[in-house]
Amino acid sequence: MTDLKTPYLIYLGNTQIQGLAKTGLGLVYWRPERCLGQLREEGCVADLGIPDMGIAEAVIAGARTLVLGTAFIGGLMPSEWTGRIVEALESGLDVASGLHIPLRSFPNIAKVARTTGGVLHDVRLMKGPFPVANGLPRSGQRLLALGTDCAVGKKYAALAIHREMIAQGMDATFRATGQTGVLIDGQGICVDAIVSDFVAGAVEQLTPAAEVDHWDVIEGQGALIHPAYAGVSLGLLHGAQPTAFVVCHEDGREELSAFPGHKTASIAEIIDLTVLLSRRVAPGIRCVGICLNTSQLNEAEARERLTDLSVEYGVPACDPVRFGVSGIVRNLQ
Amino acid sequence: MTDLKTPYLIYLGNTQIQGLAKTGLGLVYWRPERCLGQLREEGCVADLGIPDMGIAEAVIAGARTLVLGTAFIGGLMPSEWTGRIVEALESGLDVASGLHIPLRSFPNIAKVARTTGGVLHDVRLMKGPFPVANGLPRSGQRLLALGTDCAVGKKYAALAIHREMIAQGMDATFRATGQTGVLIDGQGICVDAIVSDFVAGAVEQLTPAAEVDHWDVIEGQGALIHPAYAGVSLGLLHGAQPTAFVVCHEDGREELSAFPGHKTASIAEIIDLTVLLSRRVAPGIRCVGICLNTSQLNEAEARERLTDLSVEYGVPACDPVRFGVSGIVRNLQ
Repeated sequence: MTDLKTPYLIYLGNTQIQGLAKTGLGLVYWRPERCLGQLREEGCVADLGIPDMGIAEAVIAGARTLVLGTAFIGGLMPSEWTGRIVEALESGLDVASGLHIPLRSFPNIAKVARTTGGVLHDVRLMKGPFPVANGLPRSGQRLLALGTDCAVGKKYAALAIHREMIAQGMDATFRATGQTGVLIDGQGICVDAIVSDFVAGAVEQLTPAAEVDHWDVIEGQGALIHPAYAGVSLGLLHGAQPTAFVVCHEDGREELSAFPGHKTASIAEIIDLTVLLSRRVAPGIRCVGICLNTSQLNEAEARERLTDLSVEYGVPACDPVRFGVSGIVRNLQ
Repeated sequence: MTDLKTPYLIYLGNTQIQGLAKTGLGLVYWRPERCLGQLREEGCVADLGIPDMGIAEAVIAGARTLVLGTAFIGGLMPSEWTGRIVEALESGLDVASGLHIPLRSFPNIAKVARTTGGVLHDVRLMKGPFPVANGLPRSGQRLLALGTDCAVGKKYAALAIHREMIAQGMDATFRATGQTGVLIDGQGICVDAIVSDFVAGAVEQLTPAAEVDHWDVIEGQGALIHPAYAGVSLGLLHGAQPTAFVVCHEDGREELSAFPGHKTASIAEIIDLTVLLSRRVAPGIRCVGICLNTSQLNEAEARERLTDLSVEYGVPACDPVRFGVSGIVRNLQ
């Protein structure tokens, strides 16, 4: 399981598009207390709105990990990145990356890390060993964010629900299951990178037995109807043994993202499948909310749509980004 | 994807229990034409009923791969095994193993293999890269063997149906998805060893588009209700896009094997789940048979039970080991 040392210096290279710095933006939004500063190359357009720092300065200020907070375009890592990563290692930092290319696959980076003892966190590489799931009942409350597709806001919903639980005085832990979530929270597992036999077991380990009123808020992955990723979603569902779940959906999306010709699920379909497939390991599971991305609607339309959904499904419906998730969380206490 | 050179010399060590030589017995039963001989150490009790041969003799007779056809008790590979594996490599053979400990993890074996160029087939290690599934429709017929639990005869059923199809003049290919199946057939993938994101994609690659009347007969894994392995089963189901399936069950088994407290699925439950979860990628799927292990019943009871099942589900029901699968296959033509 990944576990990053804090605080972070966030690396942005010379990113020309703010959206490419998604990981860095997520870090600063969700875990500002972990973010000491940003390191930007000359001409970088992306900006996280936190202090600019060089590596030496960040180390003096207490930084422990350089986190790659942006992506690059094309297949090759820019040479200034590898230079900065080596410099960070030589300055005593660990380095964390959610990129597809593992840091350790660069011979010079791997070599310097061996010398300095700095840890290379390639959060997409899950080494294990992980246990096989046992499926035994365990104490504590667990909420899983499911979706009608990939990229419909499951991570955002889980982070928002966790933050709201804390704000409402509840005892809760966010559990990351994907690379961006792991980098944001500094902990977690990347379930889609785990050997299939151990997915459910790894999630059991990630979300262990807890106090009866403690909530693990678990980031979902994929969708139970997805032609490529449904197996990941089901292993995650079984390992999580949720007591509650929310369904995330993007209003107006009709085709699965990047899978033309495949329809998204309906919210009802995901609710029914989740309850059915949980029957044995989480028989008490219930849907406790719907999280809708309403960015295609104006505010009045959005409120109307959420009210309609709430009536239709008998649970609070919200747009986490636009209106927050307090209705869902209030209902859990 | 694994692809072994034939014919094989099958290694049995000095196995004292015939059942431990399960892989070797399966090889000789299902693929006798690939099995040149067996290599047994002094005092070996297990016997595949094929000629005993030393490595030099087998090489002269044309052997290409030494297959480990037995398991050992305890965690350490016996030293005579590593000696034989090195001897086989030095004699120009490849070596294939379905053991949990990879051959390449033994430094002396790995070193000799590098020198001789012999291939070490650790069929449980799936290196990839495998593609992400696309879920697009493809031509050809595909039959998947599903189960109400692990170890209920899915591999046997698939091999038997494939053999019967060939006997009845149909065009068919067996597709192995587990280590023993891969060693028996010399080809295939070990789906439970694949990173979860790529399970469905790997199965799509294993069972490509084919002539409209060609059958891929696909070994199933796990069970769609299994607390540890359901995600593997679902990824396999989605990747396979079956046009037909059989359900395998052991009469009288009530608890999941090695998962006390967890009930096995009923046959009806697996049929319903399979059809439901295939709705999007294989909407035409249908159950075409039930394969029951009746070893706990006498012959009259077994025949009565199979007749009852056949009436209840409206498809042929058979015990592949006891009575064969001709009824299922006849029904597919």
